[in-house]
Amino acid sequence: MKRIDGRKNNEHRRVKITKDFIKYPEGSVLIEMGETKVICNASVEDRVPPFKKDTGEGWVTAEYSMLPRATSDRNNRDINRLKKNNRSVEIQRLIGRALRSVVDYKALGERTITLDCDVIQADGGTRTASITGAFVALMLACKKLLDEGAIDKMPISAFVGAISVGIVNDEEILDLCYQEDSHAKVDMNVVMTDKGEFIEVQGTGEESPFNREQLNKLLELGEKGIGELIKLQKEALE
Amino acid sequence: MKRIDGRKNNEHRRVKITKDFIKYPEGSVLIEMGETKVICNASVEDRVPPFKKDTGEGWVTAEYSMLPRATSDRNNRDINRLKKNNRSVEIQRLIGRALRSVVDYKALGERTITLDCDVIQADGGTRTASITGAFVALMLACKKLLDEGAIDKMPISAFVGAISVGIVNDEEILDLCYQEDSHAKVDMNVVMTDKGEFIEVQGTGEESPFNREQLNKLLELGEKGIGELIKLQKEALE
Amino acid sequence: MKRIDGRKNNEHRRVKITKDFIKYPEGSVLIEMGETKVICNASVEDRVPPFKKDTGEGWVTAEYSMLPRATSDRNNRDINRLKKNNRSVEIQRLIGRALRSVVDYKALGERTITLDCDVIQADGGTRTASITGAFVALMLACKKLLDEGAIDKMPISAFVGAISVGIVNDEEILDLCYQEDSHAKVDMNVVMTDKGEFIEVQGTGEESPFNREQLNKLLELGEKGIGELIKLQKEALE
Amino acid sequence: MKRIDGRKNNEHRRVKITKDFIKYPEGSVLIEMGETKVICNASVEDRVPPFKKDTGEGWVTAEYSMLPRATSDRNNRDINRLKKNNRSVEIQRLIGRALRSVVDYKALGERTITLDCDVIQADGGTRTASITGAFVALMLACKKLLDEGAIDKMPISAFVGAISVGIVNDEEILDLCYQEDSHAKVDMNVVMTDKGEFIEVQGTGEESPFNREQLNKLLELGEKGIGELIKLQKEALE
Amino acid sequence: MKRIDGRKNNEHRRVKITKDFIKYPEGSVLIEMGETKVICNASVEDRVPPFKKDTGEGWVTAEYSMLPRATSDRNNRDINRLKKNNRSVEIQRLIGRALRSVVDYKALGERTITLDCDVIQADGGTRTASITGAFVALMLACKKLLDEGAIDKMPISAFVGAISVGIVNDEEILDLCYQEDSHAKVDMNVVMTDKGEFIEVQGTGEESPFNREQLNKLLELGEKGIGELIKLQKEALE
Amino acid sequence: MKRIDGRKNNEHRRVKITKDFIKYPEGSVLIEMGETKVICNASVEDRVPPFKKDTGEGWVTAEYSMLPRATSDRNNRDINRLKKNNRSVEIQRLIGRALRSVVDYKALGERTITLDCDVIQADGGTRTASITGAFVALMLACKKLLDEGAIDKMPISAFVGAISVGIVNDEEILDLCYQEDSHAKVDMNVVMTDKGEFIEVQGTGEESPFNREQLNKLLELGEKGIGELIKLQKEALE
Repeated sequence: MKRIDGRKNNEHRRVKITKDFIKYPEGSVLIEMGETKVICNASVEDRVPPFKKDTGEGWVTAEYSMLPRATSDRNNRDINRLKKNNRSVEIQRLIGRALRSVVDYKALGERTITLDCDVIQADGGTRTASITGAFVALMLACKKLLDEGAIDKMPISAFVGAISVGIVNDEEILDLCYQEDSHAKVDMNVVMTDKGEFIEVQGTGEESPFNREQLNKLLELGEKGIGELIKLQKEALE
Repeated sequence: MKRIDGRKNNEHRRVKITKDFIKYPEGSVLIEMGETKVICNASVEDRVPPFKKDTGEGWVTAEYSMLPRATSDRNNRDINRLKKNNRSVEIQRLIGRALRSVVDYKALGERTITLDCDVIQADGGTRTASITGAFVALMLACKKLLDEGAIDKMPISAFVGAISVGIVNDEEILDLCYQEDSHAKVDMNVVMTDKGEFIEVQGTGEESPFNREQLNKLLELGEKGIGELIKLQKEALE
Repeated sequence: MKRIDGRKNNEHRRVKITKDFIKYPEGSVLIEMGETKVICNASVEDRVPPFKKDTGEGWVTAEYSMLPRATSDRNNRDINRLKKNNRSVEIQRLIGRALRSVVDYKALGERTITLDCDVIQADGGTRTASITGAFVALMLACKKLLDEGAIDKMPISAFVGAISVGIVNDEEILDLCYQEDSHAKVDMNVVMTDKGEFIEVQGTGEESPFNREQLNKLLELGEKGIGELIKLQKEALE
Repeated sequence: MKRIDGRKNNEHRRVKITKDFIKYPEGSVLIEMGETKVICNASVEDRVPPFKKDTGEGWVTAEYSMLPRATSDRNNRDINRLKKNNRSVEIQRLIGRALRSVVDYKALGERTITLDCDVIQADGGTRTASITGAFVALMLACKKLLDEGAIDKMPISAFVGAISVGIVNDEEILDLCYQEDSHAKVDMNVVMTDKGEFIEVQGTGEESPFNREQLNKLLELGEKGIGELIKLQKEALE
Repeated sequence: MKRIDGRKNNEHRRVKITKDFIKYPEGSVLIEMGETKVICNASVEDRVPPFKKDTGEGWVTAEYSMLPRATSDRNNRDINRLKKNNRSVEIQRLIGRALRSVVDYKALGERTITLDCDVIQADGGTRTASITGAFVALMLACKKLLDEGAIDKMPISAFVGAISVGIVNDEEILDLCYQEDSHAKVDMNVVMTDKGEFIEVQGTGEESPFNREQLNKLLELGEKGIGELIKLQKEALE
Repeated sequence: MKRIDGRKNNEHRRVKITKDFIKYPEGSVLIEMGETKVICNASVEDRVPPFKKDTGEGWVTAEYSMLPRATSDRNNRDINRLKKNNRSVEIQRLIGRALRSVVDYKALGERTITLDCDVIQADGGTRTASITGAFVALMLACKKLLDEGAIDKMPISAFVGAISVGIVNDEEILDLCYQEDSHAKVDMNVVMTDKGEFIEVQGTGEESPFNREQLNKLLELGEKGIGELIKLQKEALE
């Protein structure tokens, strides 16, 4: 079977990481994975949530949102419905968890870094692109803190990349675009470190359940894809 | 290592499923897993969401909430903060997805079944207990529809059970209570059918990443535990 | 005329008060009046509202809510409408006022006790059942404070019970179930102490006005019913 | 004991009812009871709530609010707290119930009359002044419908007036001003028809409970006061 | 062309400024411009917004709202839609800006004066009437502070008045009533000091653009009208 | 006096208009004025607001928002405060009014075009850049409708451009950047057509009032600047 855009099953889309995309944030990245485009801004603020107060430790959190016309049909803004979109809530919790897993709160010191992931164009895989892009923005912000002498060492213990995998027409494929995603029977998001370890595995068989063998194939695809993404992150940061 | 309540690593807590707990819902269950207690009510309504209108197909959705004092400290009600708790949003999306994976929308007909999962006492594993209990409530509601002649056949293709697994003190354990959960380095929720297939796998290494071998051990624990839970569901439904 | 469930006009429904229903709250009660079931949890917190700050005095307040399927039809959750149900607001204000009338704020000290009354099954009289049950939960919480030496004497000056009365088919009756309530021309809630004094009298003739004689008969029924309820409260607390 | 403004215990404050205060509403009244001033506007709209649709019957409802500086200290507007004031919710439910008790829904036809009671200056007794004033506005709106031939007969079966009574310094007094109200041990609101029957009796002994004798004295005071108010309503409507 | 109410093109409506309309506010004014009636209350509070904290400077802000039936059709209250009316937001920002332009924050000291402009009857020009009336209320509040010795000198550097002008049937006219406003091709609000300088000019040609000559004529009309209004303000304050 | 970035007083910043910036909207533009960057997306939908239903006429509206880190400090998202930013409300009303002034609703037909203006980087003049950019997006969307035969003729009667002018250090200058804006004594936004007529003039002297002569100079600067902008719009659309 040929994929819709001619890619091989284990091939990810063209990735482009633009550093310093917006001038104000401490770290700013535009990440493009195929037609998916996300602005990832890291903001450093000298405050921590109540449960971190006076601990000498910092915090990292994320917010995820889409512009109304990032998608084929226009979506009403959250504020007009007075309700954060449920899917966005789930995604921003995932991004936050994924990044926090490699943060050394002590080394960060009592400050909060917020990663704003704003999708300006969506074509599948926005949550994994957000994680991959936000990690670079997080690195940029930490480097800035280090350069300014605000911290003594990088508070990040490993690189973090993420990619989607799934089963479409009974074949396991890497990095689904929107049209593939909408036909997938199984959909999985994998987040890993550059040491080849898992941070998060979220597989869903909403259309049909999957077995261990399929799960294993998907994890291998994810592993391969994330390895390539982390190489690109490192290039972008050089 | 001995577990806090003396269980073996692969042993789940005492489970009790009380049918018809509340008298009004079409399906009602009180599920107790150790000290975790969740009321799962299934409500059948003759309406479907807009995207299902005039398709002849139905819909299944879930809502998850905790009483303010289901936990050790009192939590403010969502309505007083005017904001659905983010964790609850993530959980109710998981419950809905898990149950929908075995629903035959055509057989259900143009109606919606809402599964309300209200935690009255929380001691770890509330999301998986909610799935396991809500599945029984869903079955009860569908049986009622079948008995009344509203539908021709059961619109459920498989049993669904769920359980948590995790790594605590470097050991993989089944069905974590709250105290274990708060010390876990890896936390995973597994949802499976009675055919031994996965519906959802959500593993998170917020404290430390995990490798493939650990993942495999956790999946095996989950498989064993869910097998036992589904046996209990079947007994409860007889 | 025979009542729907065979009771005499001056007879209340079967009452069951289960102490320590939920394990975390400082006081917890499940009260059942016939088919009406309310979980009443008392939470003690070391904070007071602004107007009590630095007065050495405490506060008592209440919240009332229903599970979505506590009733025959499913009710949408408040948070989904972003608006506290108006009826619930009125009821929780009544519960709070009723309980506060017997509280010695000085003796309680600068802490707040919140009574959460969550109706899990509603069959009429939920507000009065909430008051009767919440009073027991309040007593349990205060006893715990006393036992722990946090306070020197019980800060409660009298027992408080509540019951509904009403006029159905031109007859005054005690403790209306839902079906009676929906046909009542006059509906009254009475809250009294164990000294036979009134704390609150709320009579409404939405369907038709009532005269002084009818009012007197209703008050006598209420007096009798509350006397019996307070006996049950005392037994439960022994 | 002398009352703060020299009134006798059974004497109400000076009452002034100004008809047609605002030019747009179908009925508009400014009611002044002493220093308490409430604008009561009746709006007729050709729509009914869902439960009245296609019944041929109408509906009457009320909304109650205070200007931010109707009181000694400035109150934040509801919209800035995104929450209807709880006290206002309780009051507007009372106003609505009180007026509906004398409305013939069939005679009104499928339309809704909304009574907006906006307190521009508050000095105690705003809820009872609102009922007394809103009743006149309701009458004006119904007369307009009758004059225009929209309805065949007045859909109002009796006059409705309301007044507050209470116990201050162990004496029963009529029509409490704010300063009296803030020292009252018992506070009661009485709503009656011109036939001397009760529509609503709401007595609260938040500070101390009260006995049957005191209740009777308060009801007698209320009866006297409402009789006088209804006379003034009739004069205003002539 | 004759204007709808017989006025000349450069003639404003009858203006009436009633001081001390409500008894609690530090400054209170009822302003009537023709049938437009606005209650303007000034509240002095000993708090400032965060950006003024510990600066020794004060702040002036405004809130604007309409009663539901200030207009021909009833408008739902903001709180019922959980959203401040967009037009009101725009207007209250204008009122605040206009008044702040003549306030000496140092002389005011660290306190906030809030101008609540509540329209009880609307017939065009409510925003300019609000500014003109609120200025008088602001002066009254400041005079009170001065009289009480709370401040040393009046913190107001000039009088401020406002009026609407517009183009209807190709003629420039002053002080449009609602019916004129709804037919205006160009609508302009002018705010000026008693020194003949502009504080705010807001001209809109939503229906058709306008040229410089028309703009000049409108500004001259505004200048004339505001001069007359400020004379009336001064009389009212004497 | 030299301007901060070396520009002459009557010189606008470098403008760049990128067409088809986002692929889904019917019209999409990235407009850059100096460091200010706004994504302007035009969405065509086959629905109209209630007041346009069954009139055969269309509607044009706008929404304005900033990414949290479009500014030097991070701003909390509206949805987290449950309140649309007041400044944004004022701006989006201005954008909508400005564009509607040149729309032929009949020619547009019963559809709504929504202009989403999302500021990704703010350096002064975001509201006028939004108008200038949104106008191009609106043209693109209309051309698409025309090309597809959905409409018969362009429903736009004139070009619309907008720019800010102001008085800084007693000099009138064109197109203020953020730093100039924050020191401006007078701030004015001008919206004009390519026929040299005014659509909107909004001048504010919050810091100090201004006279007629200054107003005239500002209008001339605006006229010059808008003339140049409209030339650039025409080039972009060719």
